[in-house]
Amino acid sequence: MNSSMTRRNFLGSMTAAAAAGLAAPGLAMAAKAPEKWDKTVDFLIVGTGFAGLAAAIQGHEDGIKNILVIDKMPTAGGNSIINGGAVAAAGTDMQKAAGIKDNPDLLYADILKAGGGLAHPELARHIADSSVENYHWLKKQGVKFKAVTFHGGHSVPRSHAVMENSGAGFIRPMLAKCKEYGIPVQLRTILDEIVVDDKGAVLGIKARQNYRFGRDNSGKTVYIRALKGVLLAAGGFSRNVPMRMEHDPRLNEKFGSTNHPGATGEVLQAAQMIGANTVQMDWIQLGPWTSPDEEGFGLAPLFVEPAVGYGLMVDPATGKRFIQETGNRKVRADAIVAIEHPTIIYISEKNAMNKIYGKNMTPELFNRAVENGVVRKFENLKALADYYKIDYKTLKETNDKFDGYIKAQKDPEFNCMMFKDAVPNGDGPFYACRLWPRVHHTMGGLSITDKAQVKDAHLKVIPGLYAAGEITGGVHGMVRLGTVAVADCIIFGRTAAHTAAGKTSKL
Amino acid sequence: MNSSMTRRNFLGSMTAAAAAGLAAPGLAMAAKAPEKWDKTVDFLIVGTGFAGLAAAIQGHEDGIKNILVIDKMPTAGGNSIINGGAVAAAGTDMQKAAGIKDNPDLLYADILKAGGGLAHPELARHIADSSVENYHWLKKQGVKFKAVTFHGGHSVPRSHAVMENSGAGFIRPMLAKCKEYGIPVQLRTILDEIVVDDKGAVLGIKARQNYRFGRDNSGKTVYIRALKGVLLAAGGFSRNVPMRMEHDPRLNEKFGSTNHPGATGEVLQAAQMIGANTVQMDWIQLGPWTSPDEEGFGLAPLFVEPAVGYGLMVDPATGKRFIQETGNRKVRADAIVAIEHPTIIYISEKNAMNKIYGKNMTPELFNRAVENGVVRKFENLKALADYYKIDYKTLKETNDKFDGYIKAQKDPEFNCMMFKDAVPNGDGPFYACRLWPRVHHTMGGLSITDKAQVKDAHLKVIPGLYAAGEITGGVHGMVRLGTVAVADCIIFGRTAAHTAAGKTSKL
Repeated sequence: MNSSMTRRNFLGSMTAAAAAGLAAPGLAMAAKAPEKWDKTVDFLIVGTGFAGLAAAIQGHEDGIKNILVIDKMPTAGGNSIINGGAVAAAGTDMQKAAGIKDNPDLLYADILKAGGGLAHPELARHIADSSVENYHWLKKQGVKFKAVTFHGGHSVPRSHAVMENSGAGFIRPMLAKCKEYGIPVQLRTILDEIVVDDKGAVLGIKARQNYRFGRDNSGKTVYIRALKGVLLAAGGFSRNVPMRMEHDPRLNEKFGSTNHPGATGEVLQAAQMIGANTVQMDWIQLGPWTSPDEEGFGLAPLFVEPAVGYGLMVDPATGKRFIQETGNRKVRADAIVAIEHPTIIYISEKNAMNKIYGKNMTPELFNRAVENGVVRKFENLKALADYYKIDYKTLKETNDKFDGYIKAQKDPEFNCMMFKDAVPNGDGPFYACRLWPRVHHTMGGLSITDKAQVKDAHLKVIPGLYAAGEITGGVHGMVRLGTVAVADCIIFGRTAAHTAAGKTSKL
Repeated sequence: MNSSMTRRNFLGSMTAAAAAGLAAPGLAMAAKAPEKWDKTVDFLIVGTGFAGLAAAIQGHEDGIKNILVIDKMPTAGGNSIINGGAVAAAGTDMQKAAGIKDNPDLLYADILKAGGGLAHPELARHIADSSVENYHWLKKQGVKFKAVTFHGGHSVPRSHAVMENSGAGFIRPMLAKCKEYGIPVQLRTILDEIVVDDKGAVLGIKARQNYRFGRDNSGKTVYIRALKGVLLAAGGFSRNVPMRMEHDPRLNEKFGSTNHPGATGEVLQAAQMIGANTVQMDWIQLGPWTSPDEEGFGLAPLFVEPAVGYGLMVDPATGKRFIQETGNRKVRADAIVAIEHPTIIYISEKNAMNKIYGKNMTPELFNRAVENGVVRKFENLKALADYYKIDYKTLKETNDKFDGYIKAQKDPEFNCMMFKDAVPNGDGPFYACRLWPRVHHTMGGLSITDKAQVKDAHLKVIPGLYAAGEITGGVHGMVRLGTVAVADCIIFGRTAAHTAAGKTSKL
C-alpha cells in the first residue's frame, strides 16, 4: 500500500484537479480544514469523564500550556460520575493494612483470564504495572479512599472505594484541580468530524458550540485547531441501540442500560470515518447486578457486589442456585439471561451488616434502597419464599446446603468463593433483591497503542490522535472486571497526555 | 452529525482553500480522483473467488454491459478454489431423493443457533431463503453435484458436494461462463485505494497492474472508474498475522492457516480507510479438522467430516472422548486447543468404506492420505493404541462404550449425533488421523445490507460500494457452519450484481 505517496502529492494535484473541473478528491467523511480556525489550542480533550479529566491534569503537569476540555452534555463527568466509585490497584498500602496480598502480576493475570484471550497483553500490562502509582496520583488529586472491596472475577479484594460511593468521588476533585490549573472545561460542545491534513495527521476538529443534547442540529459550527493533538475520551455506545445491534443484534431496545444518556458513540464513529481501526466491538457487557425494580445503574449493584460470597443467588422458578455467585460479569449475566427471568440474591442481616455497610453502601443509601423496594427485608426464609413465590422446601434445602459450604469454606457445586468472615445465613432475617441485566459497558472500540495513540486500519498510528477509556477497545477483551475500567480510563487518559507532551517514559 | 453538508460544499470551498494556500482538506486515506481515468467500466469486481465470479455472471445476466473482474494473484479462484467443494442448500431434489427432510426455516435456525446470537438475522434469512434457487442457478452454470453430505452443527445433511471434491468444481464452470460471456478476468491487479467523490460515493479504485504477489511495491498504478459501482469480493484475512492478532491476540504466527497465501485483508482495510464499518472481526474460526501431519487445508478434513457420528475422537493422553464429535467447529476446535495437544479421530474400516468414500473423499484421495501418513491404518485397537501411546485398557472401554451408543442410537455422554447406518466399530481394522486446528475463516468483516451494500460507521450505505463473501461480517456470527460460506459468497455476490444492475427484487 502506498497511500502515503498519494497523500503527499495531494495539495499540488488538488489545484489542478479543481481547475480542470473534475470531481474533487473524494474523501469520505473527514471535514475539510477551514480557511480560518475559530480557536487554536495545544491539546484538545473530548470528554469530561475519568479519562478526559485525568488527561487534562496530567497534560498540565507535563507542561502542556493551552489545554481545552469539551463535552457535549450540559454537565461534566460523563458516564464516570455515575460509576460505582472504586478503582482497581494491586499492591497498595490499604490492601496491606487489610492483610490482602496482591501484586501487578496477579492483576495482569486476572485481566487476561477474564478477557478470554482477547485482551491486548501490552494494554493490560500497562494498567497492571501503573495501578499503584495511579492510586497515589489520585490521592494527590484529592481523591479520598475509604475501603478495599471485592468484585467478582478478581483473585483478591483490590477495588479501592471512595468516600462518596460513586464516580463523583473522582470527578469532583479532578474538576477542582482543572479549575485550580486554569484548564477550561467547555460544555455543550459536540465533536462532529475530525480534521486531518494531507498526510492523514489530525489537525483539529469540527464541532458545534451551544449544542443541546437531544436536538440533532442544534449549536453553531466552530473549527478548533489542536497543535499537539486531540484526545478522544468520549466514552462508549451503550445507549446507541442501532450501533450496538450492528455488533450484537440481540441487544435491541428491550434491554435497558446503566449508562448516562450521552453514551451514544458518535465520536467513535467520527474516528472510524478517518480510517481509525476498531476492535472487539461485539463484546458488549451486561451488568448482572441491576434490578428491574429501579432505573439505570441504581442502588442494587451496591448491595449485590459485597453480598456475593456471603449470600445466595437463586432461580425463583426452581428454588435452586444456578451459577457461581463470585463468577465474572459475563458468567453471571449470561446465566441470568439463560433462565429468562429475574433472579433473586439474598443475604442474612448478620452478613449484610458485616459486609455491605462500610464498603460502597452507606446506611443512608441502604435505607433508600429498602424504601424504594429495591432491597426487601424478610424476617425469615418462609416469608422470603412466599413473597417471591419460591417453593419453601426446596429453598430451605438450598439455604442449608449453602450454610454448609460457608462452614466448610468450600462450594463443591458452583465453586463460589467463600469468605472467611462469612457466617451461616441461617433463618435470617434476610435482605433480598431481584436482578435482571442491563447494557453496562462496550468493551470494544478504537484500537490504541500502549501510548494511547489511535491506530488506523493498516495498524499504523494516526499522528495527533489519542484515545482513552471506554471509547477504546482491546483493553479488557471478552469481559471487563469490575473497577478495572476506572484504572483503564485514568491511566490511559494520563498516558495520552504524557505522549502528547512529548514524554517517552511510562507514567 | 451533519457531515453530508460539509461534503456537499466540498468542491466549491476546495478551490478557495487551495488558492489560499491552506492545508488541503485532509482526507485520511482515500485516493484522489485522477485527472484522467485509465479505464472506465460499468461494474468492477475485486476478487475471483465464489463471490466475484458469481457476481460477474449474474451482472451479465442482469444486463450490465462492461464488467471487469480483477485479482491480485497470478491465478484465478482465490481461496475458493481450494475450498472443500460443497454448498449448503435446504430443500433440494437431491435431499428429497436421499430421504432428507429440510427447509429454509431449518437452515435459518441452524445458522442463528451456531451464530450464538451474533448473526445478522436479515443476512442469514437471505441465504436460507435463496439456497435452493442458488443450487439450481449453480447447476445452470455447469456445476455438477454428486452427493449430499453432513457437516457438524447442521440439523440434517444439506451440504451439496461437487464431483471435483473441491471448490474448483464451482470455480471452473464459473470461469468458463465468464469467458463465454466475454467478461475479462484481469489477474495480478491489486486494489490499493478506493476513490470516492465529494459526497462519499465510490467512483472507482486506484490499483496496480502487473503486480507480483509478495513484492510490495511491484506493478504500475492505474485508476479504474466504475460507473455502476465496485464490488469487494476479496476474501478474508486469515493469512495476515498482525491483522488477526489485532482482533484476537492469541492467533500469533504459531497458528497455521488453511487459506491460500493471498488471504491478507488489504481490500477490507482500504474500505475501512473510507469509513466502512466492520463487525465481529474478532470471531476468527479455527478449523478443527486439520492435521499437523500435512500443510494447509489438506486431506484430513475430507476424512474427518464424514467420519463424525461414526468414529470417535479421543484425547491420546487419557484414552477418553472429550467432546461431541458432531458439535460445531468452534466447540470442537476450542476443545482440542484446551487439551493442548493433537487429538485422534478413528473409524472402523466398515464405517469408513460406507461413509467416507462417495462423499468428498475418492479412493484416490484416500490412498494419497494414507501414503502421506495423514490417515493411518491399524489392524486392531491394540495396534492403534500402541502407535499413539494411548493406554489400551482405557481406550478399549471408550471404544466399547461408543459401540453401545451406536447400537442404542444415543450418546448420553456427549450427545454425539448417531447415524442410522453406523455399525459398531468393534476391533477394526481402523483408520485414524491426528488433528490440530488452523485458522480457517475470518467471520467478521465489512458490514453490509441484505442487498450487499457496504455500510459506513454511521450505518449508512456507501453509494457504489458492495461487498460479498468472506470480506463481509455479520452473516455467520460466532460460528460459521460448514458449506454455508459457499452459499453466502455466491448468493451475496449475485445479490451485489443484482443491486448494481438496479434490480430491486430478491434473487
